[in-house]
Amino acid sequence: MTDAAVARTIEHHRRLVERTLDRRFAARPRRLREAIRYSLLEGGKRIRPLLVLAAGDIVEAPRSATLPFACGIEMIHTYSLVHDDLPAMDDDDERRGRPTSHRVYGEGLAILVGDALLTEAFAVMTAARGVPPARVVTALACIARAAGEIGMVGGQALDLAAEGAAPPLDELRAIHAAKTGALIRASVQLGAILGGARPAVRRAFSRYGAALGLCFQITDDLLDAAHEDGAGSDRERGKATYPAVLGMAEAERHAHRAARQARAALLRFGTKAAVLHHLARTVEERIEKQPAAPE
Amino acid sequence: MTDAAVARTIEHHRRLVERTLDRRFAARPRRLREAIRYSLLEGGKRIRPLLVLAAGDIVEAPRSATLPFACGIEMIHTYSLVHDDLPAMDDDDERRGRPTSHRVYGEGLAILVGDALLTEAFAVMTAARGVPPARVVTALACIARAAGEIGMVGGQALDLAAEGAAPPLDELRAIHAAKTGALIRASVQLGAILGGARPAVRRAFSRYGAALGLCFQITDDLLDAAHEDGAGSDRERGKATYPAVLGMAEAERHAHRAARQARAALLRFGTKAAVLHHLARTVEERIEKQPAAPE
Repeated sequence: MTDAAVARTIEHHRRLVERTLDRRFAARPRRLREAIRYSLLEGGKRIRPLLVLAAGDIVEAPRSATLPFACGIEMIHTYSLVHDDLPAMDDDDERRGRPTSHRVYGEGLAILVGDALLTEAFAVMTAARGVPPARVVTALACIARAAGEIGMVGGQALDLAAEGAAPPLDELRAIHAAKTGALIRASVQLGAILGGARPAVRRAFSRYGAALGLCFQITDDLLDAAHEDGAGSDRERGKATYPAVLGMAEAERHAHRAARQARAALLRFGTKAAVLHHLARTVEERIEKQPAAPE
Repeated sequence: MTDAAVARTIEHHRRLVERTLDRRFAARPRRLREAIRYSLLEGGKRIRPLLVLAAGDIVEAPRSATLPFACGIEMIHTYSLVHDDLPAMDDDDERRGRPTSHRVYGEGLAILVGDALLTEAFAVMTAARGVPPARVVTALACIARAAGEIGMVGGQALDLAAEGAAPPLDELRAIHAAKTGALIRASVQLGAILGGARPAVRRAFSRYGAALGLCFQITDDLLDAAHEDGAGSDRERGKATYPAVLGMAEAERHAHRAARQARAALLRFGTKAAVLHHLARTVEERIEKQPAAPE
């Protein structure tokens, strides 16, 4: 696949997810619906749904099964951002250059927006068709575990508890593996599960997903550190970040190494994995978006 | 079935649910786990899981399928209470005579307790076994819809918006049907779905569940109105309640009528529905727990 073809595929996938989400939450004269649309439909890189679709394509999972899961995982990601921004959590006033949900709709409704998105994500995913129902159940179990107490929510709880003290590297890794890594890894695994992939393929996807998740979190931290002057930044809150624990230069080296590991896991798939390759590069290239590290 | 046998069955079901939940969330040295146990394992009438198990027994759904859903629906109910009690919502300091989750663990962790319970509920329900996976998917879709934007969360959003103004009766009905009724009705429907019940049976279960849900909400309002002197009561907040809209005596009449409708829906099942009968009586008898209406 040429680079242009890969870019076209990704753009096609992105539109597919956004159109489906838009239709699923068509405007209705209710404030909850309006607030859901505000957070779900404006902006976002849609990395997780792109991973579900690209991974599913490699193992020939039907779109009628992967698209509902792609939409569901984006809804779960969005709910986590809305709740994470709340005053009792990170207390953020802005997200993607716009006021956060609770700044626009109030705290009560923002809590309900997150609750509705999480619940409706499961409703959307149960609509997967074209594969044996047992695979749908396995995929639902996979995402629930990744988003739950030992996954994303568990990571957020550890993160909340760690505020004010920079934890040692292994603890930082555990927090981020749960908070961000689990959902990214699950995105890739969902494609494999829905496509009925062999165990060796599932393991390769899982290695790719784990390495990409790590790369994603480090580059997230680096981007945040580069814009650190503003109030409410991670450093100001004393949050656990890679640059804070490792220094900027070493954090960059860790990110590049993780990206290399992600690419290495794709070797067996050859050109069929072109889109997953591209997505790994996209994540890695975020490092260059921040000023060179002086350390 | 004798009354004593019904009572024994209910007690057996209740213990089964509580033991399963206790094992599922065995104590672990983490604050999130401790906070989950605090809200999930102390008290509660367990009405919803009892409905799942009793309905499932009538249509001979295997326990290995109904028990995970019984536990899941109780987890969803508990998450909704934890979030409902938050300062940005009802701002309650006490629940079942103990400090609410956010009073003990802080607002941030209480939000995460709710998020974890909702997510893990779906993980628990995907572990249902002994029925075709397609039924599990249908049951998951049923509970997600009942708990989601047009169900419980949607009702909470309407309730939040209605605060300070007593709405007309039909709007009050719509709020409560969504907020409380949908989950109670779904509990009964889950049993029918997992047992592969015929459409006529499902419709009868659905009528029973809808009427019981209405009876439950009215009696809840009546109990609250009877203890209305305290701060933070529904009336003080100007919340939409049946006694506020109908007056106490008329609200009582509505509750009794709903209980009669619930019992009528069970006629076709004869003595097989003894436990569902008993549960309807338990809900109706809550009316007598409050002082006689003067009005």
